[in-house]
Amino acid sequence: MNVDGRHYRTIWFDDDEEAVEIIDQTELPHAFVTRALRSVDDAAEAIATMRVRGAPLIGATAAWGMALAMRRGAGDRDIADAAGLLAATRPTAVNLQWALRRVADVLRPLAVDQRARAAARLAVTLCDEDVAINAAIGRHGAELIERLWRAKSVAPGEPFHILTHCNAGWLATVDWGTALAPVYRAHDAGIPLHVWVDETRPRNQGAALTAWELGAHGVPHDVIVDNAGGHLMQHGQVDLCITGTDRTAANGDVCNKIGTYLKALAARDNAVPFYVALPGPTIDWSIDDGLSGIPIEERDAAEVTHVPGRLDDGEVASVRITPDGATARNFAFDVTPARLVSGLITERGICAASREGLSSLYPERGEEA
Amino acid sequence: MNVDGRHYRTIWFDDDEEAVEIIDQTELPHAFVTRALRSVDDAAEAIATMRVRGAPLIGATAAWGMALAMRRGAGDRDIADAAGLLAATRPTAVNLQWALRRVADVLRPLAVDQRARAAARLAVTLCDEDVAINAAIGRHGAELIERLWRAKSVAPGEPFHILTHCNAGWLATVDWGTALAPVYRAHDAGIPLHVWVDETRPRNQGAALTAWELGAHGVPHDVIVDNAGGHLMQHGQVDLCITGTDRTAANGDVCNKIGTYLKALAARDNAVPFYVALPGPTIDWSIDDGLSGIPIEERDAAEVTHVPGRLDDGEVASVRITPDGATARNFAFDVTPARLVSGLITERGICAASREGLSSLYPERGEEA
Repeated sequence: MNVDGRHYRTIWFDDDEEAVEIIDQTELPHAFVTRALRSVDDAAEAIATMRVRGAPLIGATAAWGMALAMRRGAGDRDIADAAGLLAATRPTAVNLQWALRRVADVLRPLAVDQRARAAARLAVTLCDEDVAINAAIGRHGAELIERLWRAKSVAPGEPFHILTHCNAGWLATVDWGTALAPVYRAHDAGIPLHVWVDETRPRNQGAALTAWELGAHGVPHDVIVDNAGGHLMQHGQVDLCITGTDRTAANGDVCNKIGTYLKALAARDNAVPFYVALPGPTIDWSIDDGLSGIPIEERDAAEVTHVPGRLDDGEVASVRITPDGATARNFAFDVTPARLVSGLITERGICAASREGLSSLYPERGEEA
Repeated sequence: MNVDGRHYRTIWFDDDEEAVEIIDQTELPHAFVTRALRSVDDAAEAIATMRVRGAPLIGATAAWGMALAMRRGAGDRDIADAAGLLAATRPTAVNLQWALRRVADVLRPLAVDQRARAAARLAVTLCDEDVAINAAIGRHGAELIERLWRAKSVAPGEPFHILTHCNAGWLATVDWGTALAPVYRAHDAGIPLHVWVDETRPRNQGAALTAWELGAHGVPHDVIVDNAGGHLMQHGQVDLCITGTDRTAANGDVCNKIGTYLKALAARDNAVPFYVALPGPTIDWSIDDGLSGIPIEERDAAEVTHVPGRLDDGEVASVRITPDGATARNFAFDVTPARLVSGLITERGICAASREGLSSLYPERGEEA
């Protein structure tokens, strides 16, 4: 999407520099800095330190890391070493392992002198595939927004209000994002949108990343605390909720950033449509019930007790908000039951949040399970 | 309640110092500092800068401010000047105006040389009344906790889990608090409690004040982000929710800190009892429907975009969490419909959250309306 009027992806190859360029997300939202990756070590460091984050972007960066490795040496041992190095950066990231396997499977049968070019081609392909999936989510979601917007017959000057939680925007992917792809597409098509951005404690991906990318692209928005969405829905200030999902159970239950469930409850209580956007690969066909089947990661309590941000003098620092010695617990995700989800927006279209709905769009996968 | 084993109120008269002492809440949670108020100006400054906060405590501080004023001069003009000065500190605080009226009404008929002593006596009385009301809320609420705890037949070693939002603890009153009074009473009686403390963005009264006062008194607790409560309830980790309320409509709707409504929705969805603790004077008999009748204050957006806390070097500072130029909205309260409230805990007992319920406990007020 755009940053100050210029189009960017989150990762690209720069021919002049002969390097892979990324947006360094650890500098956001306080500075927009791009960074060159010139080796597999650079790529591994960028993933490990979360200069790049978001499952699809991690996968794309790993593929580019393999391509960078092959330029220095493309023997079987080089493939194994590079894949091993990259795989260790974020051990639980499913897309990362998937991308590495895919690259290695393509390279191994090739002659050594063909591998560097093939790896670069494949990295481009993987990035383009991600963009295509998200663009398709954007098309289907934008049709939904337009339909709801027309049905609402918004008063002149009054925008159509969308609430989102966490960051499922283009920064988490190569471009477009998942939950925000429909927002960008509808905005670019001239529908007057306004986005309520949940700050998304504890890591504040909403306040930091979603607010930044919406601002950079020019989509009107306001940051709100996670507590505020219910009040806004009670007062008719939310026309639609769209969130992403980290993992979708075969029955349509969605596991997303902690707090998503509370917004879905408020949406149901106030008859606000609640949609979840997802690429097909995040559906876990092996899990029949999200609430009992998806384990919830518990993270470092310091994410709750401390808040990072920028001081008045421009320095970035972290402040402790709790008393000395206070303990905290930090549950990273929650599961929103399918009964609270109005529909799932996928690259193949929109379906009901149910086994039947998902199987209708992914008949080949539905049968597997 | 206790601070490191010693009992404190939030405000008291120190005979040796001949001054009113308060706990300076602007220093919490990072330091415990008491402060002497020696004049009505000191009292006004303490209220205006929120060294004291919470409706009952503001009223008590205003009464002590009048008593301090009368020591310097007790003419009719002195009464009017002191009341005017104190009333202007927090113009919308209902308890403040009520306390000032009550003091002035008692003083005016008296001879000038009797007013200083009478004002001090009345300040003591107002403080004792607040403590008595909260202690009674604590008794009724603790009976509820004990009943639910016994019914649950908690496994050995497993505590009874209570979730609370914001700070309705003793720091907001003269002692005991409202929502936390039952917690202190049940804890002191030996019931093994554990409190989930919502951090309560944007002002973090939970993470700062509730965590501090529970820690100082020795009640086991963990701070969680406001997003986490639904997940905990889905997994059976919350046995009871208790919150306070700033204003209660005659139909039982409760207006409390933003985000209370989301917790009430989650409690209903998971069959967790959701109780609200309140002193009778916060019932607004003139409002029949909280959702349409109670105006919601919108506060400074900087409370959302900036977070205060303590840096590693001990200095207290504020960090910006949003990008430069990002806008935010800051709604201070929301209304939880009576249908989501299991019951109201008052100084006169527990009743249904309904006009009938409230009228059964306050027959004299129910008829007024």
